[in-house]
Amino acid sequence: MPFETVSLEGHIIDSLTLSKVLDTILRVGGQYQITKFDVGSTKNNLSKAEIKISADTEELLQQILHLVQQHGALRSEGEISTLPAPADGVLPDDFYATTNLETSVRIKGIWRPIEQIEMDCAIVLRNEEVLCLPMHQVKQGDEVVVGDIGVRVDPLQRRDPTDSFSFMESDVSTERNKTLIIAAIAQSIKTCRNEGSRILFVGGPAIIHTGAGLYLEQLILGGWIDVLFAGNALAAHDIERSLYGTSLGVELSTGNAVAHGHEHHLRAINTIRGAGGIKQAVTSGMLTSGIMHACITKSIDFVLAGSIRDDGPLPDVISDSIAAQDAMRKQVKGLGIALMVATTLHSVATGNMLPAHVRTVCVDSDADSVIKLLDRGTHQAFGLVTDCEYFLKELVSNLRGLAA
Amino acid sequence: MPFETVSLEGHIIDSLTLSKVLDTILRVGGQYQITKFDVGSTKNNLSKAEIKISADTEELLQQILHLVQQHGALRSEGEISTLPAPADGVLPDDFYATTNLETSVRIKGIWRPIEQIEMDCAIVLRNEEVLCLPMHQVKQGDEVVVGDIGVRVDPLQRRDPTDSFSFMESDVSTERNKTLIIAAIAQSIKTCRNEGSRILFVGGPAIIHTGAGLYLEQLILGGWIDVLFAGNALAAHDIERSLYGTSLGVELSTGNAVAHGHEHHLRAINTIRGAGGIKQAVTSGMLTSGIMHACITKSIDFVLAGSIRDDGPLPDVISDSIAAQDAMRKQVKGLGIALMVATTLHSVATGNMLPAHVRTVCVDSDADSVIKLLDRGTHQAFGLVTDCEYFLKELVSNLRGLAA
Amino acid sequence: MPFETVSLEGHIIDSLTLSKVLDTILRVGGQYQITKFDVGSTKNNLSKAEIKISADTEELLQQILHLVQQHGALRSEGEISTLPAPADGVLPDDFYATTNLETSVRIKGIWRPIEQIEMDCAIVLRNEEVLCLPMHQVKQGDEVVVGDIGVRVDPLQRRDPTDSFSFMESDVSTERNKTLIIAAIAQSIKTCRNEGSRILFVGGPAIIHTGAGLYLEQLILGGWIDVLFAGNALAAHDIERSLYGTSLGVELSTGNAVAHGHEHHLRAINTIRGAGGIKQAVTSGMLTSGIMHACITKSIDFVLAGSIRDDGPLPDVISDSIAAQDAMRKQVKGLGIALMVATTLHSVATGNMLPAHVRTVCVDSDADSVIKLLDRGTHQAFGLVTDCEYFLKELVSNLRGLAA
Amino acid sequence: MPFETVSLEGHIIDSLTLSKVLDTILRVGGQYQITKFDVGSTKNNLSKAEIKISADTEELLQQILHLVQQHGALRSEGEISTLPAPADGVLPDDFYATTNLETSVRIKGIWRPIEQIEMDCAIVLRNEEVLCLPMHQVKQGDEVVVGDIGVRVDPLQRRDPTDSFSFMESDVSTERNKTLIIAAIAQSIKTCRNEGSRILFVGGPAIIHTGAGLYLEQLILGGWIDVLFAGNALAAHDIERSLYGTSLGVELSTGNAVAHGHEHHLRAINTIRGAGGIKQAVTSGMLTSGIMHACITKSIDFVLAGSIRDDGPLPDVISDSIAAQDAMRKQVKGLGIALMVATTLHSVATGNMLPAHVRTVCVDSDADSVIKLLDRGTHQAFGLVTDCEYFLKELVSNLRGLAA
Repeated sequence: MPFETVSLEGHIIDSLTLSKVLDTILRVGGQYQITKFDVGSTKNNLSKAEIKISADTEELLQQILHLVQQHGALRSEGEISTLPAPADGVLPDDFYATTNLETSVRIKGIWRPIEQIEMDCAIVLRNEEVLCLPMHQVKQGDEVVVGDIGVRVDPLQRRDPTDSFSFMESDVSTERNKTLIIAAIAQSIKTCRNEGSRILFVGGPAIIHTGAGLYLEQLILGGWIDVLFAGNALAAHDIERSLYGTSLGVELSTGNAVAHGHEHHLRAINTIRGAGGIKQAVTSGMLTSGIMHACITKSIDFVLAGSIRDDGPLPDVISDSIAAQDAMRKQVKGLGIALMVATTLHSVATGNMLPAHVRTVCVDSDADSVIKLLDRGTHQAFGLVTDCEYFLKELVSNLRGLAA
Repeated sequence: MPFETVSLEGHIIDSLTLSKVLDTILRVGGQYQITKFDVGSTKNNLSKAEIKISADTEELLQQILHLVQQHGALRSEGEISTLPAPADGVLPDDFYATTNLETSVRIKGIWRPIEQIEMDCAIVLRNEEVLCLPMHQVKQGDEVVVGDIGVRVDPLQRRDPTDSFSFMESDVSTERNKTLIIAAIAQSIKTCRNEGSRILFVGGPAIIHTGAGLYLEQLILGGWIDVLFAGNALAAHDIERSLYGTSLGVELSTGNAVAHGHEHHLRAINTIRGAGGIKQAVTSGMLTSGIMHACITKSIDFVLAGSIRDDGPLPDVISDSIAAQDAMRKQVKGLGIALMVATTLHSVATGNMLPAHVRTVCVDSDADSVIKLLDRGTHQAFGLVTDCEYFLKELVSNLRGLAA
Repeated sequence: MPFETVSLEGHIIDSLTLSKVLDTILRVGGQYQITKFDVGSTKNNLSKAEIKISADTEELLQQILHLVQQHGALRSEGEISTLPAPADGVLPDDFYATTNLETSVRIKGIWRPIEQIEMDCAIVLRNEEVLCLPMHQVKQGDEVVVGDIGVRVDPLQRRDPTDSFSFMESDVSTERNKTLIIAAIAQSIKTCRNEGSRILFVGGPAIIHTGAGLYLEQLILGGWIDVLFAGNALAAHDIERSLYGTSLGVELSTGNAVAHGHEHHLRAINTIRGAGGIKQAVTSGMLTSGIMHACITKSIDFVLAGSIRDDGPLPDVISDSIAAQDAMRKQVKGLGIALMVATTLHSVATGNMLPAHVRTVCVDSDADSVIKLLDRGTHQAFGLVTDCEYFLKELVSNLRGLAA
Repeated sequence: MPFETVSLEGHIIDSLTLSKVLDTILRVGGQYQITKFDVGSTKNNLSKAEIKISADTEELLQQILHLVQQHGALRSEGEISTLPAPADGVLPDDFYATTNLETSVRIKGIWRPIEQIEMDCAIVLRNEEVLCLPMHQVKQGDEVVVGDIGVRVDPLQRRDPTDSFSFMESDVSTERNKTLIIAAIAQSIKTCRNEGSRILFVGGPAIIHTGAGLYLEQLILGGWIDVLFAGNALAAHDIERSLYGTSLGVELSTGNAVAHGHEHHLRAINTIRGAGGIKQAVTSGMLTSGIMHACITKSIDFVLAGSIRDDGPLPDVISDSIAAQDAMRKQVKGLGIALMVATTLHSVATGNMLPAHVRTVCVDSDADSVIKLLDRGTHQAFGLVTDCEYFLKELVSNLRGLAA
């Protein structure tokens, strides 16, 4: 029976890595024998295991090896192989597809870590650099890693249980004390600020519809957000709120079916189109408040990504979705935490780009939306089923006591 | 072709009554002719219509007449008929089944209104009184109204558009400004207080799980609640919170999967069982805070209805569900508003008992639960999809400014 | 007190138009007097009303007139006014914003209907034509209708109650007999086919994830679909299913967490990118089954609209969202029915483009998604909360008996 | 620093037991040292670990020991202690509260397993027997186990990966191939049948509302159900369907808002009350089809538990909820699988009673309901978010091929 031996090292018990590897082997139909096992006797000691994997066929064995590789199981020998990309945006057949976990490749006996890992990409060697590139950025002739020999994945370590984020397990629940949870998220944001890592906010238009825009504005003005990802709708409704005030019109639009809210946001978009863009509208004194105004005056980067639902759109919207993705990618570097609020589309898109170590909080009033994000591979996300209005109000209130 | 003429009177255009009657006739396969129509020319004038309904068969005609009767269409002539109940808790075959709309019966030429109308009940003449009784309360020989001749239903009138409740239409939405909505609900509660009508709170255990119990306690202490409907779980978890404090234990139980919360609530129940009841535990100084403590010290009526999920239960729980229903029925008189928070079971049960004119607000974090209540016939309910924690916190904050 | 008289005509009672107009006036703070009223005495007779609207200020009166105009209330006199667009993609300030209801404009005493009405657009006079154009399609100097005088909106008429679609009211419910509902939808599709109107299918990738792709393939092969709107994900997962078979791999990917499905879909996308497109892959014999294969072989139009979540994307995807919108717009002409299944993004985007008379069915397993579509203005949509798998399986089974 | 040594034995790696124990220690603030570790080198070998746990205070140490005891960690020495119950239905203060995991107690050096374990109960020694009793069944003077020394909990073992149930992990997802999942559930039912273990069906009234009652009837007639748990509503609506036929009336009630369905079910209940009960109605030839008819004719046990929502209720309903619980408890013995469909109340109540080894499938169209069950401690449950209509139709279709 064909076999191969792999090794595992790290906090493989408490991070469940060993369990997952053994489980994977059995599910797919293989067998294992643990040939060596050094248990880390305290929380600071690493454990090591050597596992002999066997399977009925060579093909099945290769499949198992491929799967356990993604949980960090390492074949002792071997270096990466590459093949040239056959055309721009086209990869060689057997290309290695990345996960969002920390990944290294062995080249000439040396492990080289990949700097900005992202799931569902290729690994490309270009000018002595090892890059993680989405398919469309690969150029003809680029050397692309194929197969999985020589690629090492480091599974997520269990969080330190004293960490403010540690009690948030990757599950979804509605019946929990959100006051405590939001306080812990505020603490995590503060920690990011202190560590110098960046804070991303991803938001949907329900933030404006529910009247929570002013809390997001306060977060930005308070210096708690480094970059904002949103779509045309959030920006347009935010600007509508600024231009058409909190007067009678707004109360109607929230509480009253007769209101002609659709016109207001169209007129807001039209006004900004006339001005040439959001920045121009701020500079000319036309736009004097709101989330987008705060971004401009505080010089916060933002990416407004287009979608097929868009009216207008605003001139600042990147209507090409691949160009918008690439603009988002540039902003993902150095993130410590990502807050995703009330948007399935932008949350999933952003989740796809984040390395697994970025603390990710996904807030939605609908459990289904949160489940979808987790299902899409952003397993590190913590899902909080609640109103964006409540979340943001509490968050602002918690952060007010903490200097940015 | 058989026909019958019915009349409609009231705000039949703006309360949609006329539309519903015409629609009903056509759907079931009948035809109509509007033979008279006096339109109320301003909002203060009533409209009157006379409609000739015809159908292919006498049977279909009777079915249509029965259906439009429930929208307020009245046959000109006729008095009620009755038959004696054949046994205790058993009605004669053709008994009239009530709606939750204001209803009168014609006896000896006089319209007699039914005092406490409830859906799905029978109308019984007992000792000169006209009673609306659930099936199990009917005694052998009671005179029960059969057929629908001589029964008049007054459809719900449209609310005055300047009323604080009027902008809440009976629909369900998650993307609305809840701050405004909760402020309007607070205003409605205040109005009830001023009018001297009673305020009912129906709550589920998620109120405690999410840490919102203290807001409900504040509502009771502030004099804003006249009666509380709940189950064993709300009371048990509230008492657990009081007995086991807001210390380490509680923080673990909310944020931490390792906690043994199931034991705490069992121990709380066991303690109260040992004491003989909640009142005894308060009197003896054992229970010194929380929702149930507030009910006892403020002499607020409560009904704790049993369910098959119950641990224990607490001695104060009425474990027989029919007895619990009857205890709830007694408390429904004179209600102006019913707040139903985070409980599908108790909300539906209570909704079944409420006359349609009681302002009903149903709050749940899950849109489905709210939809279920509306589907079950409590059409007057206003559904608010949000956290009970957020709802109660905002409500307390709104009511604080208003003297009870 | 300033006043104006408007007229209403049509099935204004049973289509609720009159009720809505009166309600609107009162809510906003105006008063009405019904000065004439001719009731349509049977279902085939039209009713007519003349309503004198008054308000405290001229401004409020104008606001009321604007709102009731959208329910079909017509001022007796007047023709449209226009102003030139100040720049490409920018409208004059007071532009008339369209609804999705049938709309006509009065020019030189003649009512001219607008051919393809769409909500949130402008009305433009260009070369003797009256066009409904989204903002971005307007060119500098185009004559754009401003104000609402001379614009007539025809409210949706109530459906004939014997119509197979009539029992589906615009609400959302989970507890209904879906077998009956799906049978009625099948009948509506058949009716569209007979009437010669077109059938649109809008679908999300959950159709593939749940194994329901084969039913959609059968609908296309059976001639029941005229045009397909989807995104990169539906097409990519469909092609993945075709290329990687119903073998072990696929069964694992559906039932088993260990599978590396993310790689399969990347490899599928890469393969099609290598081939140059879906059509090329079909022609070359590389792609031999599935939804996209069926579209190609049956010459069914499709629009694959890009989004920021996309991997790849497939070469057939229109990654610019405004270009994708315009491609969708071209396909909307002549539609009789739109089936929107398991996609909030594409459903809302499509809903925005549809005239209100198009029968619209929105199917999602999550009540929240369905509610969102209705909230976004596609009020004519019928929401069905169920599995796409169940919906499509039943639909195919119902349509099998009916010749296309 | 106080310390204690515990041992763990079994499939402690792949069932995650070891990970959970170490995690628990760290979270609560303790420290560990793994003093011995024998790894089970293949899937058939057991692993053994000895762990020295230390904590800053004796109190914290005891808390940790209590928590890890529930994951199977065993203190080497010690026997159980007991105290007498101070009154009927009241337990001594420090009573041991059970989990739903297999549990044994050490008495005179011998481990005695508890026969029918249920969570949230007490362990009572009565007449040489070791019983797991809910609080209300304990009598004054009963010897009740206190503390956790001498109590052993056996954590759930990982399922054999070739088992048809193994691919269903305890999570909730909407985007999965339900056809495959339902086929596996059918296979599990078949396996239960072959092994001679019993099959429980727990159902809510949506089964009837959606027209799926006939599939449940077929399951019962086919011999696939041993016991049915439901409430008044399921039985009443089932009987309504039988008595009032599949004629025009029923079609209206499902598709049409004008129908007076509330009367039909009241009349159905009244009819059965008049007959004296369901069995009498079957015997007298009054009730000739439906779910309840099938239970009577096939002599299937059923428990109809009362709730405060009930109309009537039917004479067969046990309206006292504690009596209903006890009736359910009697039926729980020997169960192999529990199917819980479209009812949160009965599912949670039943889940509370089931030992963790019973395969539990919870089906609901609403993800929230499924999440609630898992949150309530029935961690072994597999949640399937789908229509009950689809689930039951597919299940019947799958089981038809398999002889009962």
